[in-house]
Amino acid sequence: MYGTAMAQAQAQPTRAAVGDSEFDRDTAVTRREPGVYDAELSAGWTIISAVNGGYLLALLGRALGEALPHSDPFTVSAHYLTASRPGPAVIRTEVVRTGRTLSTGQASLVQFEDDGTEVERIRVLATYGDLDGLTPEVRTSAAPPAIPPIEQCLGPGDGPAPIPGSSAITDRLDIRLDPATVGWAVGAPSGRGEMRGWFGLADGRDPDPLSLLLTVDALPPTSFELGLTGWTPTVELTTHVRCRPAPGPLRVSITTRNLAGGFLEEDAEVWDSADRLVAQSRQLARAPRP
Amino acid sequence: MYGTAMAQAQAQPTRAAVGDSEFDRDTAVTRREPGVYDAELSAGWTIISAVNGGYLLALLGRALGEALPHSDPFTVSAHYLTASRPGPAVIRTEVVRTGRTLSTGQASLVQFEDDGTEVERIRVLATYGDLDGLTPEVRTSAAPPAIPPIEQCLGPGDGPAPIPGSSAITDRLDIRLDPATVGWAVGAPSGRGEMRGWFGLADGRDPDPLSLLLTVDALPPTSFELGLTGWTPTVELTTHVRCRPAPGPLRVSITTRNLAGGFLEEDAEVWDSADRLVAQSRQLARAPRP
Repeated sequence: MYGTAMAQAQAQPTRAAVGDSEFDRDTAVTRREPGVYDAELSAGWTIISAVNGGYLLALLGRALGEALPHSDPFTVSAHYLTASRPGPAVIRTEVVRTGRTLSTGQASLVQFEDDGTEVERIRVLATYGDLDGLTPEVRTSAAPPAIPPIEQCLGPGDGPAPIPGSSAITDRLDIRLDPATVGWAVGAPSGRGEMRGWFGLADGRDPDPLSLLLTVDALPPTSFELGLTGWTPTVELTTHVRCRPAPGPLRVSITTRNLAGGFLEEDAEVWDSADRLVAQSRQLARAPRP
Repeated sequence: MYGTAMAQAQAQPTRAAVGDSEFDRDTAVTRREPGVYDAELSAGWTIISAVNGGYLLALLGRALGEALPHSDPFTVSAHYLTASRPGPAVIRTEVVRTGRTLSTGQASLVQFEDDGTEVERIRVLATYGDLDGLTPEVRTSAAPPAIPPIEQCLGPGDGPAPIPGSSAITDRLDIRLDPATVGWAVGAPSGRGEMRGWFGLADGRDPDPLSLLLTVDALPPTSFELGLTGWTPTVELTTHVRCRPAPGPLRVSITTRNLAGGFLEEDAEVWDSADRLVAQSRQLARAPRP
């Protein structure tokens, strides 16, 4: 499916620009009153019928970037309360503290039942800053994940449809998984809590701090490689954006060390084309029933 | 200093009990009105003049455990706003969502200036559950950290005072660091972002889910072993409690993979005496100026 979108993107002489792409249009928020924003959750970012948690996080992150005096997310902690549905939503923000280099805000995304009842979907605490104001010092002991070249990695067009049902988000992402972590798609999961791959937006839009919030929750769950199929709903997801990403494809590595008691953590690292570690995230998720 | 407290604890026939220890008394909260609690930040948990962030987290965690229908912290995300001082504080809580197995709350710790101005210190989002209700399944690929036996590890009484100035918290904790990660104390940091050791409360109180919130932020910062001295203030700290800890000493391993742009992450794992991974945490902190 997105093989088609990919081919189209590659055929186009111009790639979608940051600020003028599907991702930007679908994360647009409109200020209704100070600190309150209207949003439309696009059906284009759903997995089966659920709206992707990373897309929702980018929406909340965008509203907070407008509400706070600093524009870049440094650390964003999201607690997922109820499953969001495509359609209208309201995001309420609060400025918690404003500092010289960092400011902290809170945001809540709500939707409305047919009878008008308000239901909160996600609540977020976030600290923002200015990524361009960081010192150039880099003393990283972490190394980029060992992922084969993109042309050796596998997209949805390269095998059996990995996710049953309608997954609109597949058309919008260009994810190529490391063959070492796709055993689950052919009934032979590795048994290791690892998922790795290349990540891009299908229309070629380059990454920015906001799209990194989508990237950290876009790969299939590590639980697939642990031999569990089914839904792995996020309870909480915290993302650190550590560097403004360079243009070009990203590499994402997700690891799970502890599946226990019906829950698992997923740690994601995102590396840019300049070999910089641009984001780290950890989520607590419910494991599918074995 | 805490060598004395240790000797006293070891000489006592009875260890302090959970619910009747210094930690329990110093994290007591008194309900003033529904959802609002009075607390007294004890000077006993300070490092130089700053109140320890893990102790503060345990205080907030205790208030949330009283306010929410579930009593055990599963995931707690804290954003540190301003430095707390010993003395009175007020904790305001909000029940965000109540579910069957999980409930989510928010808490804010505030103190007051001499002129009565309210200053917010920390804001927390947390999801609580029932650790005893978890399935017994454990499929952990993580292994406990390789730390020498406790009698081969080093406490404050075993060498030069590691932390300059008054550190009251040292008397309340029984931390024995892995000799491989104490180079910083003798001017020979390893250059690796690692800190490991045994953790207990000096009065022998056994661990529980609340004290784990203290444990994850109690060791010296990894930045010491990276050759940086000075303050490493926490910006955000998220802790997952994964299992009710067994009685006895804990092992804590902290790693930093990415020191860059003046910030670093610290990942902590806490293992109990039954070799269970009982807590995982990650914080984003400001690096000391080199």
